[in-house]
Amino acid sequence: MAHNHGFKTIHSHHFGWDNGLTPALQAAPGETLEFEIVDASGGQLSAQSGPAEVAKLDFGRVNPVTGPVYLEGAEPGDAVVVELLEFEESGWGWTAIIPGFGLLASDFPNPALHISTYSPQAVEFMPGIRLPTRPFPGTIGLALAAPGPHSVVPPREVGGNLDIRDLTRGAKLYLPVQVKGALFSVGDTHAAQGDGEVCGTAIETPMRLRLKLELWKGAPLKRPEFDLPASPTPGLESGGYHATTGIGPDLFPAAQDAVRSMIDYLGREYRLSPEQAYMLCSVAVDLHISEVVDAPNWVVSAYLPKGIFQ
Amino acid sequence: MAHNHGFKTIHSHHFGWDNGLTPALQAAPGETLEFEIVDASGGQLSAQSGPAEVAKLDFGRVNPVTGPVYLEGAEPGDAVVVELLEFEESGWGWTAIIPGFGLLASDFPNPALHISTYSPQAVEFMPGIRLPTRPFPGTIGLALAAPGPHSVVPPREVGGNLDIRDLTRGAKLYLPVQVKGALFSVGDTHAAQGDGEVCGTAIETPMRLRLKLELWKGAPLKRPEFDLPASPTPGLESGGYHATTGIGPDLFPAAQDAVRSMIDYLGREYRLSPEQAYMLCSVAVDLHISEVVDAPNWVVSAYLPKGIFQ
Repeated sequence: MAHNHGFKTIHSHHFGWDNGLTPALQAAPGETLEFEIVDASGGQLSAQSGPAEVAKLDFGRVNPVTGPVYLEGAEPGDAVVVELLEFEESGWGWTAIIPGFGLLASDFPNPALHISTYSPQAVEFMPGIRLPTRPFPGTIGLALAAPGPHSVVPPREVGGNLDIRDLTRGAKLYLPVQVKGALFSVGDTHAAQGDGEVCGTAIETPMRLRLKLELWKGAPLKRPEFDLPASPTPGLESGGYHATTGIGPDLFPAAQDAVRSMIDYLGREYRLSPEQAYMLCSVAVDLHISEVVDAPNWVVSAYLPKGIFQ
Repeated sequence: MAHNHGFKTIHSHHFGWDNGLTPALQAAPGETLEFEIVDASGGQLSAQSGPAEVAKLDFGRVNPVTGPVYLEGAEPGDAVVVELLEFEESGWGWTAIIPGFGLLASDFPNPALHISTYSPQAVEFMPGIRLPTRPFPGTIGLALAAPGPHSVVPPREVGGNLDIRDLTRGAKLYLPVQVKGALFSVGDTHAAQGDGEVCGTAIETPMRLRLKLELWKGAPLKRPEFDLPASPTPGLESGGYHATTGIGPDLFPAAQDAVRSMIDYLGREYRLSPEQAYMLCSVAVDLHISEVVDAPNWVVSAYLPKGIFQ
């Protein structure tokens, strides 16, 4: 931990979730925090690596997360509101096919590695293929109430390896608290990713990330929800989105849970009856598969365009 | 069938798919055709109906489709290219909760009915809630090679009740042909819908629809694919999308199939290796749940933004 530029920086990282870990930092709600984030390989892959290094990956060192931060005042039943502020990108990233991992693991038995470079504006995947840079942390979450270490791979009700591609600058993420102090950690930064993260890796890249943690006392949340900022272009997206999630080993009940949370939200925020809300979901809310690779739990997100409300 | 305004109009409709049906019309590739489409209740619900009428629905009369059209020259192994041209909307639509049907059937045991009005620009769901009107046919497909009648409810490799919300003006849909003449039918028009169509119904509305059928000989398609037009706003969507689909009773293998078809497409159109294509899918292609209610088959669509290619 260091104090620079008016905010606290957290360097230390850990593997897996464990509510017995000593906090790297204690923070008050509203403080801006900076996280030094190591790439998902934990530094095992570099821009000079090839498939052989993918085959030799030590999985005990993958997906480090930076933290945990003890948020003052947070208790079970509250939510942590994470406001994503700024990303300092490192300019290169890797994408790998890791044997045994990914949506098409049975079709792709061999390791592969692809290196991309990027600017704050665009990722050059290869000559002639350019993606907008949309940095976000793939893993962002809180400690579980259940004691002992828990694998970092599956996302859970407290967040974790959500791989929700839209958690970029300006997004707000709401995470239900299960332990005193919440114990927030973040890692697995991506320069770009599609919904699904189908091969199991995105543009994996180290970054420096600044965010703010706020506290929402007595939050009525069962699972992570998020708000996305308004788009500068005209159209429905110019009102921004509220999204709910469903998380679990089967996409169908995950879709059900996401819609159930959206029905709750529409009742809470817009006073719609459950029936009205369910029908509005059917005509206006979009189901996205946020990730389908972080076994055993997949994430379905339900996106409500807020521009429909006058 | 009638001949007006320079195009042929098809009025007759049928229930379910059956390759033994007599064509309503024989068309040459490239002809513009007009379809008179009855709403999904087959006229059983009106703007004056209520939940009691939903409870009394005769399911033998739901989801009529207009057709079939015999497309000259179409043979198994080809694809029909459907170009969606124009929609003449009727101005009102219904959304229902139908007991036993929908993603949350167990949470919503009672019938409900909601009537919306709409203009070509916007659907008024209720005062203060307005959606952009985005008309599309929920059901659009070809006859199956397997003889006999087949339920109209589940979508299949030849299309059908796909409920892909983006098949609106300017979209092109590619459907694999299984029988001579293809036997194209279309119905179930919606004024707006979210990805998933979670309560099982959209803004269900009768419409007049004009489209063009072209023939793609020897098409390398296993399942429906579609192209979406470029958006007028700047950003990635301004390049339009190519999308592939996976269809089946489990969302996970459906997601796998959608990605497999996208890998095929990226190899075919952009000469990417399967490994490159799989990794590009992971970083740039979005998985949407197009519908999760037309039992027993759900649809996952993989959206590739074509703006990434320079």
